[in-house]
Amino acid sequence: MKALVLFSGGLDSTTCLALAVDKYGADEVLALSISYGQKHTKELEAAQRVAEYYHVKLQTLDLALIFADSDCSLLQGSTADIPKTSYAEQLSETDGKPVSTYVPFRNGLFLSSAASVALSHSCEVIYYGAHSDDAAGNAYPDCSSAFNDAMNTAIYLGSGNQLRIEAPFVSKTKADVVAEGMKLGAPYHLTWSCYEGGEKPCGLCGTCRDRAAAFAANHIADPAL
Amino acid sequence: MKALVLFSGGLDSTTCLALAVDKYGADEVLALSISYGQKHTKELEAAQRVAEYYHVKLQTLDLALIFADSDCSLLQGSTADIPKTSYAEQLSETDGKPVSTYVPFRNGLFLSSAASVALSHSCEVIYYGAHSDDAAGNAYPDCSSAFNDAMNTAIYLGSGNQLRIEAPFVSKTKADVVAEGMKLGAPYHLTWSCYEGGEKPCGLCGTCRDRAAAFAANHIADPAL
Repeated sequence: MKALVLFSGGLDSTTCLALAVDKYGADEVLALSISYGQKHTKELEAAQRVAEYYHVKLQTLDLALIFADSDCSLLQGSTADIPKTSYAEQLSETDGKPVSTYVPFRNGLFLSSAASVALSHSCEVIYYGAHSDDAAGNAYPDCSSAFNDAMNTAIYLGSGNQLRIEAPFVSKTKADVVAEGMKLGAPYHLTWSCYEGGEKPCGLCGTCRDRAAAFAANHIADPAL
Repeated sequence: MKALVLFSGGLDSTTCLALAVDKYGADEVLALSISYGQKHTKELEAAQRVAEYYHVKLQTLDLALIFADSDCSLLQGSTADIPKTSYAEQLSETDGKPVSTYVPFRNGLFLSSAASVALSHSCEVIYYGAHSDDAAGNAYPDCSSAFNDAMNTAIYLGSGNQLRIEAPFVSKTKADVVAEGMKLGAPYHLTWSCYEGGEKPCGLCGTCRDRAAAFAANHIADPAL
């Protein structure tokens, strides 16, 4: 294998998968999907569908026990509700801290797990779909460009210079991600983003709002709706 | 809790635990011990003994599945033997790569897991016992000072500036670690280092050799023998 894609079944990582398959071919790409006790396990079903669409091997990991003591509102163990406002509104009430759906160091843990798995398969690159909208205002500090640079250095050095991160959208917006994915024909109709595990996307949580805005900015309808 | 100690039950992390307990008090320290499919599960029993000695809470995690596809000689799934030579001798045959007992990005994964757990308990610091002997010649690149700096930056930024790494020995030798531990009265008689899971330490693997040399440099007998 050449590339591992950290893969949630959402819009950003599906676009990463499209890029990796385009560059390396499906046989050289491994998708890694991580269960972590999230309320929206529906994204894992979406990951399965998208991986099948691209004929790439999908590996799954369950890391939920690591977050057993977290009170993050995104997790099944939490009694807190997922906020129904935009990230900007949420940040006005967090006193400089991340939003309540920030899962403690989740992306660092995911990238590190991806590095361990990638090295076991001799991959030379990890694709990671963080983008600048999620990092804005430090809503998700583990999506920022500075965080990504540090993790990339850690993974490159800590692997004995064998592995690096490719984060193609880290300085781009979610609207840019959609534009890129449309060019590549990414199967957005198979993806899932909403934080709630309902029958249909709620349309109100932070990620539903961001997804809708990204499609609107590209003047196209969300094919998953 | 104030501090999380990444804790294997070996000599280096026991010295870290001694430092953290000395600074914060046992009630404010959480020890995290990780099972990862290592052949020497005896170190986990040692971790239990040392945690009891210090009356600190010990949390355990099992991350073995992440390394399911690795051929690292330290792991139970590998048929390769653990080398019976010094790291310097091993490195002369690896063509610039890490030694065969390097577990792919293990310390990055452990630090990231520690970060997720630490944030769930409101800890502000992670103690990590890497030292310069293990990093020499890139035997274990995830023990180097440069790797640690990058991980520390990633954890500080990725946590929204809430958490940092304290790696007190990253520029010191294992002999320095022993000298520090002896001052603190660390219970080295309860620790386990050998990579083999035998009744007694083999005395020949890389870590047995390093441990013996560290005690010899301090002109004291290893209290675990």
